[in-house]
Amino acid sequence: MPVNYQTPAASQLLPVPGVRLGIAEAGIRKANRRDLLLIELAAGSRVAGVFTRNRFCAAPVQVCRQHLGSEESPGDIRALVVNTGIANAGTGEQGWLAARATCAAVAQKLSIAPEQVLPFSSGVILEPLPVERIEAGLHACVEDLDADNWFDAAHAIMTTDTVAKAASRRVELGGRPITITGVSKGAGMIRPNMATMLGFVATDAKVSQAALARMVREAADESFNCITVDGDTSTNDSFMLIATGAAGGTDIDESSADYAVLAEAVTAIASELAQAIVRDGEGATKYIRIQVEGGASRAECKAVGYAIAHSPLVKTAFFASDPNLGRILAAIGNAGIVDLDVDRIRMWLDDVLVARDGGRNPAYREEDGARVMKQAEISIRVDLARGGAVASVWTCDFSYDYVKINADYRS
Amino acid sequence: MPVNYQTPAASQLLPVPGVRLGIAEAGIRKANRRDLLLIELAAGSRVAGVFTRNRFCAAPVQVCRQHLGSEESPGDIRALVVNTGIANAGTGEQGWLAARATCAAVAQKLSIAPEQVLPFSSGVILEPLPVERIEAGLHACVEDLDADNWFDAAHAIMTTDTVAKAASRRVELGGRPITITGVSKGAGMIRPNMATMLGFVATDAKVSQAALARMVREAADESFNCITVDGDTSTNDSFMLIATGAAGGTDIDESSADYAVLAEAVTAIASELAQAIVRDGEGATKYIRIQVEGGASRAECKAVGYAIAHSPLVKTAFFASDPNLGRILAAIGNAGIVDLDVDRIRMWLDDVLVARDGGRNPAYREEDGARVMKQAEISIRVDLARGGAVASVWTCDFSYDYVKINADYRS
Repeated sequence: MPVNYQTPAASQLLPVPGVRLGIAEAGIRKANRRDLLLIELAAGSRVAGVFTRNRFCAAPVQVCRQHLGSEESPGDIRALVVNTGIANAGTGEQGWLAARATCAAVAQKLSIAPEQVLPFSSGVILEPLPVERIEAGLHACVEDLDADNWFDAAHAIMTTDTVAKAASRRVELGGRPITITGVSKGAGMIRPNMATMLGFVATDAKVSQAALARMVREAADESFNCITVDGDTSTNDSFMLIATGAAGGTDIDESSADYAVLAEAVTAIASELAQAIVRDGEGATKYIRIQVEGGASRAECKAVGYAIAHSPLVKTAFFASDPNLGRILAAIGNAGIVDLDVDRIRMWLDDVLVARDGGRNPAYREEDGARVMKQAEISIRVDLARGGAVASVWTCDFSYDYVKINADYRS
Repeated sequence: MPVNYQTPAASQLLPVPGVRLGIAEAGIRKANRRDLLLIELAAGSRVAGVFTRNRFCAAPVQVCRQHLGSEESPGDIRALVVNTGIANAGTGEQGWLAARATCAAVAQKLSIAPEQVLPFSSGVILEPLPVERIEAGLHACVEDLDADNWFDAAHAIMTTDTVAKAASRRVELGGRPITITGVSKGAGMIRPNMATMLGFVATDAKVSQAALARMVREAADESFNCITVDGDTSTNDSFMLIATGAAGGTDIDESSADYAVLAEAVTAIASELAQAIVRDGEGATKYIRIQVEGGASRAECKAVGYAIAHSPLVKTAFFASDPNLGRILAAIGNAGIVDLDVDRIRMWLDDVLVARDGGRNPAYREEDGARVMKQAEISIRVDLARGGAVASVWTCDFSYDYVKINADYRS
């Protein structure tokens, strides 16, 4: 069960003018589960995205990159197709052909060109994608296309997720109401590097291609790029931002006053979706925010945050609610900062100052640490006392159920 | 229980002339367990060591570095003292004073100077070392000093280890029989970077200081620096090589013919001790050898090996005997080699070719992978096809018991 997260009700997920979604049970890996999602975009929509940096990036990621084109010469994207069950990664030339065949099948159904389709896959690596099942399932997706389908779409992209993840909000830009709605999935193999497992956010705002590309990078950096469950960057991570322009008006570009308002709302949605992934991390019983401040650079703050967040010893101590907090210091010492002066570091658990002057705070009492460790949500704050940079990492604990889920995943 | 490892019998651990060992129950953290070891060295012994690179390195490591001096001006070391229970790490100025006080207490008992003593600690981080209990226990250690105590010494340094780790062998150098015996400990927080949790190897060979320093570095690089249990480099890692010179003869220096013979034997002992740590890794049910070849450098081969060995998803798949081998490809893709051509990589599980040409080997059959995954010892071989470098990493799987052990450690 996720830590303090509940999927919004279907009625809370606002339709985005210009976007319709259709879901099907295509039997891609298992029968009787929604595993295929088609997102249809109105003419004139713009799309920008960020993708995994895993060198074994999946075939659909490669096809997406090609179809999106460049900022100067972007593709005219009209549809996204998402399957779960099979990741179509580690599939070589066959995988590339399968992703292209999927695009061609969608194009035929919607009377568009294959290059106007972006394919996404999530699931088991190294196994072939059953394109014929996707083709067969597409008919039901097209029949199902509806602007009000975000709730079902969030369910259709789940794999080991225990809850669907979605968020929605409205902002006003130049007197026009603008809607932003998004969905995400992911629970394991989560340590996004440029993006998460799968995240899709759409708005009806009209946004220039350059502004959209910047907005998706900035939003990813403040949301999906702050989370980790198990340190394993997936082969399929993709985070897409869609602007249909259906709200009308002139293009929002990077110098518009509206840019900041929209970017803030998009980042807020992305953060909510990213945090939902950690709260639903495989086997998670605790949600942990790590804030590292006083760094010489944002990169070293991130490195310290991830060193803490990836330590199996730290994560199992949180699972046990055991204030065995020396493990956090050991992790900080392993972050790769060669000239780190450990005598200047301070470390807090929520408001409890645990360590200073290279050792335990004399005023620290074990019962204070134990009190915080029992909470379902915990903040770790580290002051490196080297500069003014800060960074955050969000993670979860490491439980028996993580092992159980991943030992049983394919069965 | 360890994977295919048995502690040698006491009679198999050969005494090293010039070395006596004494053990005591000092009640450092828990009562009724051997937790204090004193190693006394004959006059003229030489000692060299390598230590953790964790920035939060423990107070005893700092004191060891000081007392060992430099290669040009080495300390005249006559005793080593090792406690378990408390790591004396993350203890600031107090920790440094406690480690020094420990040396002073040993010096007084043996009528030597405090600078002739090397202190070592292992256990919980961030808690103060009870020096008075060590002082009180030293009397029993001195009473117990005996050349035949290696077996008990191996037990006295255990923490979460389920078996004692020791190895012994004899070589002939210039017609003289030379003995090499060593002990190690460690099961969790194991990803040595220059050394392991604790390892002590002694020989009666007469070795120059420069040759000894090179030998310990080379041996560590081929043994303790190849292992990982959970990716967490400890604050206390120390690997010490002692040459008492009691066998007589002239100094073995780096140009001696005997150097290679002795270095090979020392490395063999160190490998045995390092592998024993992985076989006894916390919760381990499988022993996994990862060989990466065809790299542009040894460093990138190591990076790929550790990326595989640290992936919780790979480790849980091994625990489940589930040939979900795409996880290994995903880990290779995350090793940070930016210009890696994944289409050229080949990956074997024992003799089974699993992946080539960027995807699954067409001749691979799931039952072949399943057969290998059931074994207690498994080899992963990866060919990067980029050059001639190779490297090995040895690790274990990730089970429920790892979580159990680390969630319960302090209680």
